[in-house]
Amino acid sequence: MVMRSPIEEVVLEGIRPKKKDIDHITTVAERLVAAVDRSGIAEGMVVGSIARHTWLNGDRDLDIFMLFDPSLPREDLEDKGLSLARSIATEFGARYREKYAEHPYLNAQLEELDIDLVPCYRVPSAWEIQSAVDRTPFHTRYISERINPLIDDVLLFKQFAKAGGFYGSDQMTEGFAGYLCELLVYYYGGFIPLIRAASSWKKRTIIDIEGIGAKSFEDSLVVIDPVDPNRNVAASVSLTRKFEFVELARGYLSSPSAWFFTVIDEPPITQDELRLILTQRETALYGLFIRTPPFIPDIVVPQLRKSLGAIRGLLERHGFVVNRADCCMGDERCLMILELLVDRLPQVRRHIGPPLWTEENAGKFFSKERGAIFSGPYIEDGLYVVEIPRRYTDVASLLSSGEVLETGLGKHVKHSMREGWRVVRGADCWAEEFAPFLSRFLNRSSPLGRIRLREAQQNG
Amino acid sequence: MVMRSPIEEVVLEGIRPKKKDIDHITTVAERLVAAVDRSGIAEGMVVGSIARHTWLNGDRDLDIFMLFDPSLPREDLEDKGLSLARSIATEFGARYREKYAEHPYLNAQLEELDIDLVPCYRVPSAWEIQSAVDRTPFHTRYISERINPLIDDVLLFKQFAKAGGFYGSDQMTEGFAGYLCELLVYYYGGFIPLIRAASSWKKRTIIDIEGIGAKSFEDSLVVIDPVDPNRNVAASVSLTRKFEFVELARGYLSSPSAWFFTVIDEPPITQDELRLILTQRETALYGLFIRTPPFIPDIVVPQLRKSLGAIRGLLERHGFVVNRADCCMGDERCLMILELLVDRLPQVRRHIGPPLWTEENAGKFFSKERGAIFSGPYIEDGLYVVEIPRRYTDVASLLSSGEVLETGLGKHVKHSMREGWRVVRGADCWAEEFAPFLSRFLNRSSPLGRIRLREAQQNG
Repeated sequence: MVMRSPIEEVVLEGIRPKKKDIDHITTVAERLVAAVDRSGIAEGMVVGSIARHTWLNGDRDLDIFMLFDPSLPREDLEDKGLSLARSIATEFGARYREKYAEHPYLNAQLEELDIDLVPCYRVPSAWEIQSAVDRTPFHTRYISERINPLIDDVLLFKQFAKAGGFYGSDQMTEGFAGYLCELLVYYYGGFIPLIRAASSWKKRTIIDIEGIGAKSFEDSLVVIDPVDPNRNVAASVSLTRKFEFVELARGYLSSPSAWFFTVIDEPPITQDELRLILTQRETALYGLFIRTPPFIPDIVVPQLRKSLGAIRGLLERHGFVVNRADCCMGDERCLMILELLVDRLPQVRRHIGPPLWTEENAGKFFSKERGAIFSGPYIEDGLYVVEIPRRYTDVASLLSSGEVLETGLGKHVKHSMREGWRVVRGADCWAEEFAPFLSRFLNRSSPLGRIRLREAQQNG
Repeated sequence: MVMRSPIEEVVLEGIRPKKKDIDHITTVAERLVAAVDRSGIAEGMVVGSIARHTWLNGDRDLDIFMLFDPSLPREDLEDKGLSLARSIATEFGARYREKYAEHPYLNAQLEELDIDLVPCYRVPSAWEIQSAVDRTPFHTRYISERINPLIDDVLLFKQFAKAGGFYGSDQMTEGFAGYLCELLVYYYGGFIPLIRAASSWKKRTIIDIEGIGAKSFEDSLVVIDPVDPNRNVAASVSLTRKFEFVELARGYLSSPSAWFFTVIDEPPITQDELRLILTQRETALYGLFIRTPPFIPDIVVPQLRKSLGAIRGLLERHGFVVNRADCCMGDERCLMILELLVDRLPQVRRHIGPPLWTEENAGKFFSKERGAIFSGPYIEDGLYVVEIPRRYTDVASLLSSGEVLETGLGKHVKHSMREGWRVVRGADCWAEEFAPFLSRFLNRSSPLGRIRLREAQQNG
């Protein structure tokens, strides 16, 4: 029997699912599986944290997979899968809508549960999957067979990850999937052993539980999938998120507290607060509002990041120093923000030409027809230099120009921006739906920093 | 007989010394040499361009060397050398003063000539010299024995170099010494062959006339001294000056004109013109006035350049972008100028800390006591970052601070600046003695550019 600290015992009290909820969820799950089985065309299976008994109190996500024969053509799988899901949802009187990840599935609301009904192939081994969802049943079996003695440890770690902001493998979070949390707890043999190990993680960490890894991965955190050695379960984890976890692990070991398990949403910033903070920072904040492309976040968010990087590069090529930049996807529109040290540059700009020892290029450069110039061409360390007027002397005109569309924007972002975009400055970057995002941007702090701040505030 | 272009013939008319001047200079030189010989303790020798008949009309510099026996101790050489020079100057009724290069010599004004009386050792070969001046007689003998058929070519090239601003091996010019001009004309066999060759010079040019070079040199232009293979005669030539010559050579070949031989001083800028130009450029010009250290330009100028580079580095470390910088040594004071794109930065400054995988450093950085901070510490790509107030938000306060003295200033410059310095901005950088320097700085152009501009002005 593991000895838990009193803090952990108290936390566990709160995060273990209640008997009433367990009975309720189990009953609904069993009824749905039975309905799938009854169809005669597919086999029902509960997957995810419900199946593994590793869900946190309050979670309402139930995943029911419908396993079809792998000889069924892909198109039939989608048709028959969706049609079976719809008939079951109707039979149970659930509200539902179709959704689309790698292929379509049904999302249904039933008895206060958020239920996904997902068709997949019942392949004989994880090596033979036809799409990513086919792998999920193998994950569930792998974990279910091993995790029972460590369920409390998984709950503690998932809650630690949630509170620390690194739970979730979606593109916005770039953190730890539930399956990854379970694998890590299993590999290290518990919550505290995992925390201890992570506190010493180096830049590169490679974990191969079954010792079967064949492929080498570039990622900073590599956890070879025990059911598929060509896959890194931690591929979604960014370098920043990995070390935010490492930092929290060190902090928890040196001075544990219940705050490490407490999810607290910062109050969103008001427009007046934003104005005040910018006055103090003395920086120039610019925002670009664009219409949200009609795709899921895991597609749009990486494109937004890529576009932001391209726009940042455009500003820097024109001489503007960007302090920080970030982006946020909303339902209707997205916001990219760039904080600049200086948003106005002088007319004069140095343009470096060819070296004099490339005779033909140098001759062409020298003889080139130019409009107004400030100085030159002159020679500096063997290179021609000429000082000419700057095309964009202020950031707003550059951000509003067609040059933005010529940079390496993400495909759907570019499509959306072809219809136009809006450039705003300072407190005009504020919008209600982006207030939490702006709070995090301006009061940016590591997770441990936020915890230490709360502890300090609590102690007076 | 070489065919000269009409342009070159006209130029030669003007730059060949006049019969009257030749007779006069030769007479004075012979009388001085005879006076040295008469002393019985040294042998007199005319060196430099007068000895080689390669001086330009109007030159008034006569170098008389006094060759002593190499067994004489160094101290005695200086004493006896100076005392002999003084007695000769007195005998001829010349005004004179002592000067100091590698060792002391006498500078005398006599019959409108500027005469240097320089003691040196009469060593048997240039390999056995005891100081740089001992080498000069060997240079004179080497050139005198070979240059006679090419004297007009040397005159043309020296005038070309003077007009092009690359004549002189002093630290301010970083150009071509007279001896180097003579060697190049001799090596290529004339003015036009030299111009043709130079027009194709690459980044590295190595010329070894006697095929005796042993040492390898890093310089962009290497001309092995025929009398001392361990010496690069072109060591003083900067990369910029080399390619200003290359550019002029190309320009002269493609479209020759008398302008290539015409020395024209640009009219010095007025303070109002400076103010207007800065308004157009929209840059912030800063100047530092310091008292001139009491040493010769060849010592002070490199130290000024080093100090300017150090101050530029200081500004750039504090986030200020320097567009251009230059310095000028005056008799009483020196001026260092720095042109900035932006002279005011916001309060906020990103400070990058250690990577999280260096556990001890990261822990110290996180726990460090800080005053007011804007954001952080937060984690970015595995590194800690914190945003703190900037120490210097404007250039003037940084340039006036003690930090300037902590940078890598040249020794004598630092000594001078310990007494203080004055920081000025914009048109206040103007001072009468620095007006020509400021003209060149702001209207900077390659030599060929200036010539083409004059041609255009002449033609309409």
